[in-house]
Amino acid sequence: MEGTIKARVLKGFRDFLPEEELRRRRLIRLLEDYFTSHGYMPIDTPALEYTDVLLSKGGGETDKQTYRFTDRGGRDVALRFDLTVPLARFVASHQSELVMPFRRYHVGKVWRGENTQRGRFREFIQCDFDIVGSDSAGTDLEIMLIVLDGMNLIGAGPVKIRFNHRGIFNLLLNTLGLKGNNTGVLRLVDKIDKIGKEEVRSSLIELVGEGKADSIMDFISLEANNEVTLGKMLRCLENANQGKLTKLPKSKETQLRLGLGRKENDKLPAVMRVRMILDAFDRLGIKDVLILDPSITRGLDYYTGIVFEVFLERLPNIGSVCSGGRYDDLTGLFLKESISGVGASIGLDRLLAGLGELGIGKNAGRNTDLLVLMLDESLLGDYQKFARDFRNLGLTVEVYPESKKLEIQFRYAQARKIPFALLYGFREAKGGRVTLKDLRTRKSFEALSINAAKARLISSLGRYKRRYLKPGRKN
Amino acid sequence: MEGTIKARVLKGFRDFLPEEELRRRRLIRLLEDYFTSHGYMPIDTPALEYTDVLLSKGGGETDKQTYRFTDRGGRDVALRFDLTVPLARFVASHQSELVMPFRRYHVGKVWRGENTQRGRFREFIQCDFDIVGSDSAGTDLEIMLIVLDGMNLIGAGPVKIRFNHRGIFNLLLNTLGLKGNNTGVLRLVDKIDKIGKEEVRSSLIELVGEGKADSIMDFISLEANNEVTLGKMLRCLENANQGKLTKLPKSKETQLRLGLGRKENDKLPAVMRVRMILDAFDRLGIKDVLILDPSITRGLDYYTGIVFEVFLERLPNIGSVCSGGRYDDLTGLFLKESISGVGASIGLDRLLAGLGELGIGKNAGRNTDLLVLMLDESLLGDYQKFARDFRNLGLTVEVYPESKKLEIQFRYAQARKIPFALLYGFREAKGGRVTLKDLRTRKSFEALSINAAKARLISSLGRYKRRYLKPGRKN
Repeated sequence: MEGTIKARVLKGFRDFLPEEELRRRRLIRLLEDYFTSHGYMPIDTPALEYTDVLLSKGGGETDKQTYRFTDRGGRDVALRFDLTVPLARFVASHQSELVMPFRRYHVGKVWRGENTQRGRFREFIQCDFDIVGSDSAGTDLEIMLIVLDGMNLIGAGPVKIRFNHRGIFNLLLNTLGLKGNNTGVLRLVDKIDKIGKEEVRSSLIELVGEGKADSIMDFISLEANNEVTLGKMLRCLENANQGKLTKLPKSKETQLRLGLGRKENDKLPAVMRVRMILDAFDRLGIKDVLILDPSITRGLDYYTGIVFEVFLERLPNIGSVCSGGRYDDLTGLFLKESISGVGASIGLDRLLAGLGELGIGKNAGRNTDLLVLMLDESLLGDYQKFARDFRNLGLTVEVYPESKKLEIQFRYAQARKIPFALLYGFREAKGGRVTLKDLRTRKSFEALSINAAKARLISSLGRYKRRYLKPGRKN
Repeated sequence: MEGTIKARVLKGFRDFLPEEELRRRRLIRLLEDYFTSHGYMPIDTPALEYTDVLLSKGGGETDKQTYRFTDRGGRDVALRFDLTVPLARFVASHQSELVMPFRRYHVGKVWRGENTQRGRFREFIQCDFDIVGSDSAGTDLEIMLIVLDGMNLIGAGPVKIRFNHRGIFNLLLNTLGLKGNNTGVLRLVDKIDKIGKEEVRSSLIELVGEGKADSIMDFISLEANNEVTLGKMLRCLENANQGKLTKLPKSKETQLRLGLGRKENDKLPAVMRVRMILDAFDRLGIKDVLILDPSITRGLDYYTGIVFEVFLERLPNIGSVCSGGRYDDLTGLFLKESISGVGASIGLDRLLAGLGELGIGKNAGRNTDLLVLMLDESLLGDYQKFARDFRNLGLTVEVYPESKKLEIQFRYAQARKIPFALLYGFREAKGGRVTLKDLRTRKSFEALSINAAKARLISSLGRYKRRYLKPGRKN
């Protein structure tokens, strides 16, 4: 049997080595504390759920990517592919136990059998935060501000938030006589950053004809500033509306009349919502962060209201590091009443890669401060006692596990970048004294009492840390 | 479609509600920081791996419990059922990148399709820490001390560590002419706490006959103290040895002769190891923690050396909260060379339940300190600005998301146990002043500047926290 199995991982799955994993966990902790300071609470849900619970809402794309199988009890089960569907199921399951509006965050693994050639992973961590139970501009704003301040907190700023209202986009499609959730149109518009305007336009023409294609292209283009863009969007709606009003569904038609008919376009609830967001950013003195971008649709996702994507200004090419929006009917599949929510998901892999490129968090590894060398195995208990003593000062301390040649023990310290060593053998044991060695300068301090060794280590480490390590972010 | 799907989770799977999940995450963080202070580094491995990688070592029991299926690419895959097999695969995959001895911790979900009637869960978090690449008493000791100090750190102490050496037990079985890893015998001995001595003895008699059964029962019984127990174990070995020496495998026979033949039993490496552990605990002044218990075998697990289980003295009935031991050939299935390791796994569910019973960590929930009420939606930006200001003081602050009736907003604050509210409407906006309300005393402080409100809140919260909250463990 020996050595007969090849140690390998599945395509699209990854190991995380210590330094990488430490960096990832640091970032997650920072975000968790940050969410908590806004009153968001953590939850957890199973990785595995009934397939009908997870896939009831899914389009064909999600279905095809989901890890799904029959368990030994004959149940049709699947690994979760996001944290939003589980949130819906969670809220439906625990409605009576939750205080609404309910703020939660959830950091956990999700699995998607994606095409790995596109640089995607099949297992990755999602980091979601949502407010459930309130359809208000206040919650839309809060979620966007959390993303903004969060990115600044971790040093990834400045950012740009490109946002839109999916309802306005759907309204345009309706007035053009297209279905509001037109799959083909949404997919094309979503690709505009990747394939370019011309390509989108010619594909749209094939799909819906030249007139409608140009109406859509006109609608989704960016203007000089947010006010002009919003004005343009309303004009597009109005134009489209005049030709096709009879094809509008009744309620939308009424909304539209209320809005456009009286030339008070802002009465349109979706438009009012956009205005309120713009206004709040203005009052906060940060309106430059926000770009009203009518081409942001979030593709086929379940969003119905505000949608947004967040980009790092210093790394515009890595794509959005966070995206989110409002979904009007989170729990509709499980409950009769509908509950609205808004939330966002941080792309942890992309963000970590971005922070790496920016040189942030590279020295995040907590280094071992002191290695207690093992000179004699029969003094095992003493070595562990010293280690405990020094740990009580807040230091990271290791004991070398075997009484190997000192050369080997020093080599280990070097490989692990440990700056100090403590030596204690029978000679020292007799006098109750230890030797402290600075492994960078090779200077030794002999015959120290434990207290003297502590004092010397603390002061040397302080100097060392001030000189070589960045003023650290809180761990 | 509405409300057509029942919101439910799979049998043996669980949701974690905010308070519970917060408690769980707090404990995990505390343990992570603690491991880090000993030079242990985090790693991560995929939840899903090739089945041959995970199950190569497994006995029939594990195979039956594993979630295994064929993925869309036709691969035979399985969800990990522990973190030790993935560690073996990880070490084999990254041998050249790791500094040996390698200390790692790993906190992650594992899945086992266990019989849920026994109160077991099918998804649970394991919390493992191991030192790989050294077969020494020093590492055995370190792992045991980490458990001990860790349990004290989180307030679960005092503990008893019941330990044994699987090698000595196997030696006894060998000398009795039974296979060292005799499945039937190991399973029975492992159950002694559950089914009692009499039951074990009569089952052993059925299995191996009365003579051998009594030898085993004699061997595994606890004596007055660790020294007496060790002496008794050696006597049992010696007695068994005289009858059946020829049946011993050569190398064990040689070991045994070396040890027993010269009446220097301690020369037997396994016995020496036990002695060194006992001696080190003695030197550390904590020998009472340790019980040499020859009935501890860890059943069918892959352990070959020191094995142990850890019990909370105040809650003897909940069973062991942590267990571990040494495995001599971690990577044997993947590599030609064998790498020894020692580690332990904390039973997080049981430990959390135990801490709950002891009343520890119940107030761990980080409460929101201040609720900014929403009096007028058009002041959205201002409310968020106040919230940011107060968060910069280190406070947890929420903004109520809608301009609902004050009564409803106060009710929310009450349900979430939020002690203070900030009021700011058009009246206040004109003068740039706010009202701070203490929701417990219902006392209001009107027309405060923001700075005055901050000062008042900080001093009131300080008093409040001193009075009502326990002097908190560091978050």
